[in-house]
Amino acid sequence: MSESRGRIGLWLIGAHGGVACTTALGLAALAQGKQSTTGMVTALPAFAGVPFVQPAQFVLGGHDIRRSSFGAGVRELHERSNVIDSNTIAACDAQLAAWSANVRPGVVYRPNAAIAALSDAHFARTAESPVQAVEWIQADLREFVRTRELEALVVVNVASTEPLHEVAVPGTLATLRSAGLPLPTSSLYAYAAMEAGYAYVNLTPSTGANLPALEELAVTKNVPHLGRDAKTGETLLKSVLAPMFAKRNLKVLSWVGHNILGNRDGQVLHDPANKASKVKTKEALLGDLLGYTPQSHVSIEYIPSLDDWKTAWDHIHFEGFLGTKMTLQFTWQGCDSLLAAPLVIDLARLAALAQQRGHAGAYAPAACFFKSPNGVATHDFSAQFALLLDAVA
Amino acid sequence: MSESRGRIGLWLIGAHGGVACTTALGLAALAQGKQSTTGMVTALPAFAGVPFVQPAQFVLGGHDIRRSSFGAGVRELHERSNVIDSNTIAACDAQLAAWSANVRPGVVYRPNAAIAALSDAHFARTAESPVQAVEWIQADLREFVRTRELEALVVVNVASTEPLHEVAVPGTLATLRSAGLPLPTSSLYAYAAMEAGYAYVNLTPSTGANLPALEELAVTKNVPHLGRDAKTGETLLKSVLAPMFAKRNLKVLSWVGHNILGNRDGQVLHDPANKASKVKTKEALLGDLLGYTPQSHVSIEYIPSLDDWKTAWDHIHFEGFLGTKMTLQFTWQGCDSLLAAPLVIDLARLAALAQQRGHAGAYAPAACFFKSPNGVATHDFSAQFALLLDAVA
Amino acid sequence: MSESRGRIGLWLIGAHGGVACTTALGLAALAQGKQSTTGMVTALPAFAGVPFVQPAQFVLGGHDIRRSSFGAGVRELHERSNVIDSNTIAACDAQLAAWSANVRPGVVYRPNAAIAALSDAHFARTAESPVQAVEWIQADLREFVRTRELEALVVVNVASTEPLHEVAVPGTLATLRSAGLPLPTSSLYAYAAMEAGYAYVNLTPSTGANLPALEELAVTKNVPHLGRDAKTGETLLKSVLAPMFAKRNLKVLSWVGHNILGNRDGQVLHDPANKASKVKTKEALLGDLLGYTPQSHVSIEYIPSLDDWKTAWDHIHFEGFLGTKMTLQFTWQGCDSLLAAPLVIDLARLAALAQQRGHAGAYAPAACFFKSPNGVATHDFSAQFALLLDAVA
Amino acid sequence: MSESRGRIGLWLIGAHGGVACTTALGLAALAQGKQSTTGMVTALPAFAGVPFVQPAQFVLGGHDIRRSSFGAGVRELHERSNVIDSNTIAACDAQLAAWSANVRPGVVYRPNAAIAALSDAHFARTAESPVQAVEWIQADLREFVRTRELEALVVVNVASTEPLHEVAVPGTLATLRSAGLPLPTSSLYAYAAMEAGYAYVNLTPSTGANLPALEELAVTKNVPHLGRDAKTGETLLKSVLAPMFAKRNLKVLSWVGHNILGNRDGQVLHDPANKASKVKTKEALLGDLLGYTPQSHVSIEYIPSLDDWKTAWDHIHFEGFLGTKMTLQFTWQGCDSLLAAPLVIDLARLAALAQQRGHAGAYAPAACFFKSPNGVATHDFSAQFALLLDAVA
Repeated sequence: MSESRGRIGLWLIGAHGGVACTTALGLAALAQGKQSTTGMVTALPAFAGVPFVQPAQFVLGGHDIRRSSFGAGVRELHERSNVIDSNTIAACDAQLAAWSANVRPGVVYRPNAAIAALSDAHFARTAESPVQAVEWIQADLREFVRTRELEALVVVNVASTEPLHEVAVPGTLATLRSAGLPLPTSSLYAYAAMEAGYAYVNLTPSTGANLPALEELAVTKNVPHLGRDAKTGETLLKSVLAPMFAKRNLKVLSWVGHNILGNRDGQVLHDPANKASKVKTKEALLGDLLGYTPQSHVSIEYIPSLDDWKTAWDHIHFEGFLGTKMTLQFTWQGCDSLLAAPLVIDLARLAALAQQRGHAGAYAPAACFFKSPNGVATHDFSAQFALLLDAVA
Repeated sequence: MSESRGRIGLWLIGAHGGVACTTALGLAALAQGKQSTTGMVTALPAFAGVPFVQPAQFVLGGHDIRRSSFGAGVRELHERSNVIDSNTIAACDAQLAAWSANVRPGVVYRPNAAIAALSDAHFARTAESPVQAVEWIQADLREFVRTRELEALVVVNVASTEPLHEVAVPGTLATLRSAGLPLPTSSLYAYAAMEAGYAYVNLTPSTGANLPALEELAVTKNVPHLGRDAKTGETLLKSVLAPMFAKRNLKVLSWVGHNILGNRDGQVLHDPANKASKVKTKEALLGDLLGYTPQSHVSIEYIPSLDDWKTAWDHIHFEGFLGTKMTLQFTWQGCDSLLAAPLVIDLARLAALAQQRGHAGAYAPAACFFKSPNGVATHDFSAQFALLLDAVA
Repeated sequence: MSESRGRIGLWLIGAHGGVACTTALGLAALAQGKQSTTGMVTALPAFAGVPFVQPAQFVLGGHDIRRSSFGAGVRELHERSNVIDSNTIAACDAQLAAWSANVRPGVVYRPNAAIAALSDAHFARTAESPVQAVEWIQADLREFVRTRELEALVVVNVASTEPLHEVAVPGTLATLRSAGLPLPTSSLYAYAAMEAGYAYVNLTPSTGANLPALEELAVTKNVPHLGRDAKTGETLLKSVLAPMFAKRNLKVLSWVGHNILGNRDGQVLHDPANKASKVKTKEALLGDLLGYTPQSHVSIEYIPSLDDWKTAWDHIHFEGFLGTKMTLQFTWQGCDSLLAAPLVIDLARLAALAQQRGHAGAYAPAACFFKSPNGVATHDFSAQFALLLDAVA
Repeated sequence: MSESRGRIGLWLIGAHGGVACTTALGLAALAQGKQSTTGMVTALPAFAGVPFVQPAQFVLGGHDIRRSSFGAGVRELHERSNVIDSNTIAACDAQLAAWSANVRPGVVYRPNAAIAALSDAHFARTAESPVQAVEWIQADLREFVRTRELEALVVVNVASTEPLHEVAVPGTLATLRSAGLPLPTSSLYAYAAMEAGYAYVNLTPSTGANLPALEELAVTKNVPHLGRDAKTGETLLKSVLAPMFAKRNLKVLSWVGHNILGNRDGQVLHDPANKASKVKTKEALLGDLLGYTPQSHVSIEYIPSLDDWKTAWDHIHFEGFLGTKMTLQFTWQGCDSLLAAPLVIDLARLAALAQQRGHAGAYAPAACFFKSPNGVATHDFSAQFALLLDAVA
């Protein structure tokens, strides 16, 4: 059990999205003892003795560029996607409202069109320079820590995927600073968090802390960062199925994956620039897992009728003995926010633990949570999970 | 590379079935350098330095209760299931004919109806007692070793699944012998092989060497045995997917698996008694892999139009965070004989290696090949594969 | 539009089951103008001018052997299967309570074990003879018509499937009566309804009115009956897909259908005797639709985690030109009660219309609703729908 | 039976593609009585008395821009896609060789890049004007008719899909001619055929005869034309499944279809311009079939490992009663050439019959064969099939 029983901040970038709202509801319900920990990796028996932050210790806040609230977000999920019990929502309503008061207008600097379309002009604040954006973000974080008397803070990116950043980023912290922090938005938040001494987690494919200069910052400031791009469905399956083919010496000829989803994430991914980020991290791991690169095709389509449900259909064509071609197909039907939210809690607990233990920089033991794990080469889920057990359990 | 370059016998019980015939063709083609080793685990780069028996060293023989030949078996597969290139068959025809001359009529003692229906009265020999059956089998094995001047022999069971054996088998070698060897047919062959000093492999769900008294025999005679029930499709997938659910703390509510297949194996499994053996080994592993036992349903149906193709449809219903129910479905379309045959070669190589290294009794490092591995508790494919790497690579 | 605006009774046998409760909610909501008519065939534009009974005209009652209520049934569906909006339930609560007061304890005569297990001893009434059962049922129906001042009554069987009735039933009305009405339970209700002059509809595979003696009764009493076994999913798909294969001269080699479901219907079908009824009507139609009988396999398994959701996986193996084997697979994921309830309303409207128009006996134009349509040979859904259009639109 | 027993020409544009070669093999084998007519609509019992051209009456020829032969094409299919029995190929080899001698180098006028990549410079002939292209084509057709002493000729387009034609085509025959025949390639062939008095069939999505000016030509010349875009898989299923949803008043919310295929057709469709033609005809029919237009997404991807096999995965999301969302998914695994070839024979027979009976212009009774039927509004397969029965049987 945790020896410290103080309050730990959990700051959600994209606080009004489905993942953040579900995380808030989940923590509120867990603190009341009203829900099981199903879906949380850190709640497995293997980690029973680890001094993780307990649900009741967390205090939530965040940034968003859309005006809404944790409560409105979970009710929307309930009504549109037929998930989450209405009694649970009612029981947690007061806590969600209290936490919603901690959410601050998002800070943007030159957003792209798909992101801008989501933004409510009265809620987001447009900075005139990256440096100013960082200062505004840090002011919000420090105010949160000070007024809520938090012992530590973990900043988590669960915002919509941003487009691939085309501009080269200076490779060292010094050159980055002297160039005026020419960073994509996700990295401005990562910079702001780590520069202020807070642990940073990135569940999205956006760049976040995944830059040499920001690794240098993390080491300098002695903070951990965990990322990138949580694997919650198709890629999770790839990371257990591809090793199976490899270990049986079955040759994958082609791997086609079609993803259809209907939530705001899907809407943002409908913009080809934003989609490119996501497809790229989804495709990269097959070569590593198989030792060769079969033909691979990944598509993501926005199908509004699905709301928060995501369906992935994968068709894996493989060759066995004597040139015989065979097929594996799977269909994964998962609810995105409900799959990601428990991982947010897991990663916040791991980030807090890592910081408490003095870890600085990319935290490799968290690799099993990510499509593009920082600091680890393998994509094999079993091998990644063994790393986590070794480091933490 | 193997230091010994002598001839090694591979004796196939069920020599005229699809798996055996494909194994024969595969070894003949590999010896000619005509086919790739795709599908063979022992051909992975990780095992590059291991002194395995080389394809050209193998000499094949076997028992069957149906009159046929290796060549007829592969041609039937080609014509009915649209697999195996006809040029390869032509190139290997002479070798297959030579090996077919080594196949001896099967020995049966009180066969059940489904097995008897396959049997050709002019080919099988009915023993009057288990002891006589063992003597006849051993005479065939020894004759094969002597006349072909073999350095070692591996006996592999690829016969059709026999019914669950209801009679209690004496628990020690001494009581087993004094009771007159009251064993199911598969175990009579296992006894005969190991008592004569030959390694034994069991790819089927039949009992084979999986009895305390036969383990005692193996240790006494200093021979290894490997088994039981090769995992080639649905169960292989279970052994990578169930650990994924477990490691993500996703709660499996129900796991339904439907298997349809059209080969002789399917025909034998159509008999409810024979099917019970197979379903039992298919269902057992979920409890181990998950740590609890969800509702599980496995069906196997004989659909002749599929010939050697087996399709498995699995529906996995699971619960995530906040009680949300989600679904994974997969469809596996594999050709049974082509999936099993390379594993026969792998297991023969591993058995020969284990015997050469002096291993006696159940050979645990082969666990990753089996649904009900002898001598190993885990069903997790990744963990099992690590055992193999540790022991052999 | 209907010229008569009087009240029409809808009497549900199995009133506390999911289908009946959903029907009640649907009619209450439609009467309030709170829901769309999606899922109702009689609401299609093609039938716009037909003088069907309007939702607000219906008054509901019924029999059940389990104590419960319409409201409890819909709340259970909402909580366990994540269907039906809670606002709709709240808005209809008073109406459902009023109708629940019309539900009378079920009448049973020698029920089988699976049915008996559902029965609440304080609610069901056990008759001492079939004749007594009929009298009790008719007393309830007449009391309902009298006290609620109904212009007409339609009796609909939505109870759980009963086992195949093994005993021969006398072939004429006279011999049936003189033998003391030796009928299965579903037919006792059908007899009671039609003998009292009420139209009868059978959505289940149970025998109901499907007997020569009961056809004679219907004609004698000048009442219509509609049945048998509503097609809501897998069989509906068979009735459009099989004609496609037939019209393209593609030869179906095998048709395998696996059904998994978790509601009370599934529980009753878990009893092999009850399941046999259902499988029989599901399998029969392929021969008619194709002109030959391919290998066919239908399974139904009770998987409680699915609650009211039913998943059917069908694998259709077919032969095209030059002997080429190809495959169609489908997965249907439907909510049973929500699929059947609108058809209950459709059939009640059609039954009332048929009776108003003087139709006596099996009503063939309703064939498109049923797996085993009374009075019509074809199973082709398109052809059946054309019959409905011709007769009604 | 046919009263005329003379020779009928079948001219295949795209003669060296998989569909044409399979058609040739099929006709040769049928003429020898070596194969069943499975897959041929005109061989159904319903058409038993119709005086169709018999297989042995057909004489084949064609155009292609790739040098190859009917025999090479079928052997490639056999080797790469594991279809077609090698004995059948051997038995028909001489006939295929004889027909291959009738194939003439294709005529092109400004081909696009994807088509040009397939073209063998020594085989195709590049015309300097559309008029010259038409003259060259007609010279080939007339020479074929004259030298082989044919009673009639049917010209069938089974070439790869051409890009959407962006240029406006003059609306009358007179203006078309005076403008110098500014037509896409497929329409140049259609013009050439019909202007010379030969019936024309278009199995592809290319424009072909589907232009007002060419309809005028057909009527003027008293020739029938049949098209456009044979439905062999996904769209065929749409044309039976969408009417099912419509007739049950189930509201389709979204219909997503993913097609993966590996043959030359897939390679050509990989070019976005060519793919656009195909996707357009695949998407158009939902609105007609449902009476409203749900969200629809169709993708086609080139996956070489599949060779001639095409897999379509469709996900249909629909709403039932009380707003309940449900799902139907299907996977169709068909071999493209084997599905299309029997339809080529059917359409050639129908075209010959229509011409014999004096039909001029678009032949509506053939609608059930096409995704974009000329001259018929409905896309409902059952309704279309009824048209065929009415006109022909």
